[in-house]
Amino acid sequence: MVWERRTEWPLVVAALMFLLGYALPILDPGVPPALRSGCTVILAATWLVFVVDFLGRIWFAERRGHYLVRHLPDLLVLAVPILRPLRLLRLLVLVKVLNRQAGNALRGRVAIYVGAAAVTVIFCAALAVLDAERGRPGANIATFGDAAWWAVTTVMTVGYGDRYPVTVEGRFVAVGLMVAGIALIGVVTASFATWLIDKVRQVEAESRAATSADVNALRTEMTALREQLALRADESTGNGSTQKP
Amino acid sequence: MVWERRTEWPLVVAALMFLLGYALPILDPGVPPALRSGCTVILAATWLVFVVDFLGRIWFAERRGHYLVRHLPDLLVLAVPILRPLRLLRLLVLVKVLNRQAGNALRGRVAIYVGAAAVTVIFCAALAVLDAERGRPGANIATFGDAAWWAVTTVMTVGYGDRYPVTVEGRFVAVGLMVAGIALIGVVTASFATWLIDKVRQVEAESRAATSADVNALRTEMTALREQLALRADESTGNGSTQKP
Amino acid sequence: MVWERRTEWPLVVAALMFLLGYALPILDPGVPPALRSGCTVILAATWLVFVVDFLGRIWFAERRGHYLVRHLPDLLVLAVPILRPLRLLRLLVLVKVLNRQAGNALRGRVAIYVGAAAVTVIFCAALAVLDAERGRPGANIATFGDAAWWAVTTVMTVGYGDRYPVTVEGRFVAVGLMVAGIALIGVVTASFATWLIDKVRQVEAESRAATSADVNALRTEMTALREQLALRADESTGNGSTQKP
Amino acid sequence: MVWERRTEWPLVVAALMFLLGYALPILDPGVPPALRSGCTVILAATWLVFVVDFLGRIWFAERRGHYLVRHLPDLLVLAVPILRPLRLLRLLVLVKVLNRQAGNALRGRVAIYVGAAAVTVIFCAALAVLDAERGRPGANIATFGDAAWWAVTTVMTVGYGDRYPVTVEGRFVAVGLMVAGIALIGVVTASFATWLIDKVRQVEAESRAATSADVNALRTEMTALREQLALRADESTGNGSTQKP
Repeated sequence: MVWERRTEWPLVVAALMFLLGYALPILDPGVPPALRSGCTVILAATWLVFVVDFLGRIWFAERRGHYLVRHLPDLLVLAVPILRPLRLLRLLVLVKVLNRQAGNALRGRVAIYVGAAAVTVIFCAALAVLDAERGRPGANIATFGDAAWWAVTTVMTVGYGDRYPVTVEGRFVAVGLMVAGIALIGVVTASFATWLIDKVRQVEAESRAATSADVNALRTEMTALREQLALRADESTGNGSTQKP
Repeated sequence: MVWERRTEWPLVVAALMFLLGYALPILDPGVPPALRSGCTVILAATWLVFVVDFLGRIWFAERRGHYLVRHLPDLLVLAVPILRPLRLLRLLVLVKVLNRQAGNALRGRVAIYVGAAAVTVIFCAALAVLDAERGRPGANIATFGDAAWWAVTTVMTVGYGDRYPVTVEGRFVAVGLMVAGIALIGVVTASFATWLIDKVRQVEAESRAATSADVNALRTEMTALREQLALRADESTGNGSTQKP
Repeated sequence: MVWERRTEWPLVVAALMFLLGYALPILDPGVPPALRSGCTVILAATWLVFVVDFLGRIWFAERRGHYLVRHLPDLLVLAVPILRPLRLLRLLVLVKVLNRQAGNALRGRVAIYVGAAAVTVIFCAALAVLDAERGRPGANIATFGDAAWWAVTTVMTVGYGDRYPVTVEGRFVAVGLMVAGIALIGVVTASFATWLIDKVRQVEAESRAATSADVNALRTEMTALREQLALRADESTGNGSTQKP
Repeated sequence: MVWERRTEWPLVVAALMFLLGYALPILDPGVPPALRSGCTVILAATWLVFVVDFLGRIWFAERRGHYLVRHLPDLLVLAVPILRPLRLLRLLVLVKVLNRQAGNALRGRVAIYVGAAAVTVIFCAALAVLDAERGRPGANIATFGDAAWWAVTTVMTVGYGDRYPVTVEGRFVAVGLMVAGIALIGVVTASFATWLIDKVRQVEAESRAATSADVNALRTEMTALREQLALRADESTGNGSTQKP
């Protein structure tokens, strides 16, 4: 817990640095070699930060083996180079931090989270697919504009087919995007459903269900009645011990 | 409140005028120059109406700064020329006005609102994309029929890919349409879900939950019993002060 | 009511005849002229049956004007030739009749109804789009196999774009199909949602809510107590009129 | 029941063998003739196993005719050669077996089941469509990579249209995949909806509905009160028979 709280902001900074080092050579293929080397250094440095954070979290976990098994995806993202773009998803922590300020209304928080997550996922997927596709034979995604447009049509499950990945890496990015799209549709639909159910329920709510509290109040009244009765019995007969419950 | 009620109908008229001035040069590219100038004048006049309405709403707001922050999108639509087509969404007010006449059944109102909003959004998006795409190199949307057909396939997330925008403006229109489409699917699904849940609940409803009213009636009965008991006690013992609760 | 019950089976027969007369010239463009004329006669005859049924329903309606307004779509389908394929939707009555035999489980009935309705709608849409598209310049739907394949990809909102309508009539068929597809997804999702909610509720159901019946039983007990008390008061004091509630 | 439990693991083995014999000649069209014959033998052997299992299940069923009617799809999969790929769905039993180990949380089990089922269905559909399409005139699915990519875009209802089936067999595979896709979206959406409803409900849960148990406790108290009252009546009047309830 302490580790997670302390590392939150450093990890946000590292994710932003990673975004810079990852996005720059992709967005501008003609960057000077010095800047490109700088980006490589940044990527290595942020990778180190993420590894240290992961080791720290395992170290402070109560059941280390259990924690490792449950966070296997985090390990894979750190260890397998091809999963590198997924490190950008660390930026979702930023959404979480910002969201904490945003107050308490559950539905509003879901809306902000979904919106920010969708933008983050689309941006990262566009970068990753551009990295995978540009310059490959038969590829039709050549600029960041094309890549972002393709990412939007994919995540919304529209899929015009004017742009689509042709490489294996690009297709894996697409699969991830589609899964995110299905989840997005699911969350949006679910939000509308709960909103509508609430509206309908409010109309019905004038006949409120009796709560345990209502019944308990009744019970207190009942106990008072029994005591009153027992008292009277004592007064009229004189023996107050047999009728006490 | 008073401002909103008073400006409702003028705004509907302004939105319809805006629709006329916006749609005419798009639907018929060969309009005579005089008519085209007239449309430009209408667009400027309706813009003024919208600006005055916005200033009025801020003026009469209780917390002006707060109101401005919450209605930032309205400000952007008025200030940024490229967001101009969004002013057509003012027509949704018309749906709201008509809907007020339509009675009280929540689900029916949702259906009418969704249907009218979908038609309005599709029509406006078709106009906007036609304006953005026609005559551009590589564009495949050249007539209003094509644009409307493209808008329908997009909002339904079908996306055949026989028509698609190629300009940046057109793609932004598409993103807006897709978001509307996801919301549309969400609302339709949610409506079916609540309808089905209601149907299932009606079958189960023969064992109605006890309401607070039921329990309160019981409590009144209980109080009457205690008073009856206290009265009897008074009669038989003669001292009516000690047992009153 | 009587009219609706009496005309149910004749209408099913008329719809099947209409299907025959409508589908035959579409499925086999090379039918001999005699058969083609026969189909035209069948279409006219079934049209008469539908008109007579509509007039009868208005005649026996309690509030005729109100009925006419509410069934305006039926009138349009009968009066406007281009809406003719929609008469095939009469076959959905068959689903309703068959469904009545199928017993009472709500969810099962929804599944059967949705499945049968989907197949009917896809079949009718494939016929209508083939009728609209075949032989037109630039059309890519030329056989019933193509049309059915296109209808399935459309209703499922997949939309590969290998086949798509290019005529106005065909595009209207497509819009109807897409709306049906959105409704289909909505119903399927809603069914899963209610099923899952029921499963979750069953787990929680061990603490059943108190029903009105429970509370009413308690109230009867209370009334009995008050009468018992009143009886005892009569016995001990001798005056039985003042304490009766 | 005993038959089902005893045959579970043999059927899993048979399904894996069937997968081997079915997938090998499809994945590598250039297998030596000896291996190809071996695969044919394996397919025949596993078919025999499935037939024996089906006969056994009918034999041990309580109402054999009823069982046969309800499991007609199983019979069709065994009898009709073109439905052969559906035998691969036997592998879903494996998911069921693994799932039994996975504990009790309903939502977690749904997630695992949906994920595993989606992967199985996509893999089997890719094999089946590759078998149907490869080498046909006009086909654009020629490798397993293409087939898997097509299957994913179809099940997610994205449908770019860069790959699509052109044969009747391939299109039937596609229809099955799309139905699975709609079901997948439905389940995912429903899961989010129930999760969100639960979250909202937890916030509201501080006013818990009164249960039957609460009311019954109250009733016991009431009965005790009446007995107490009857006892006192006996003591004061001396005749204990008339006032017992």
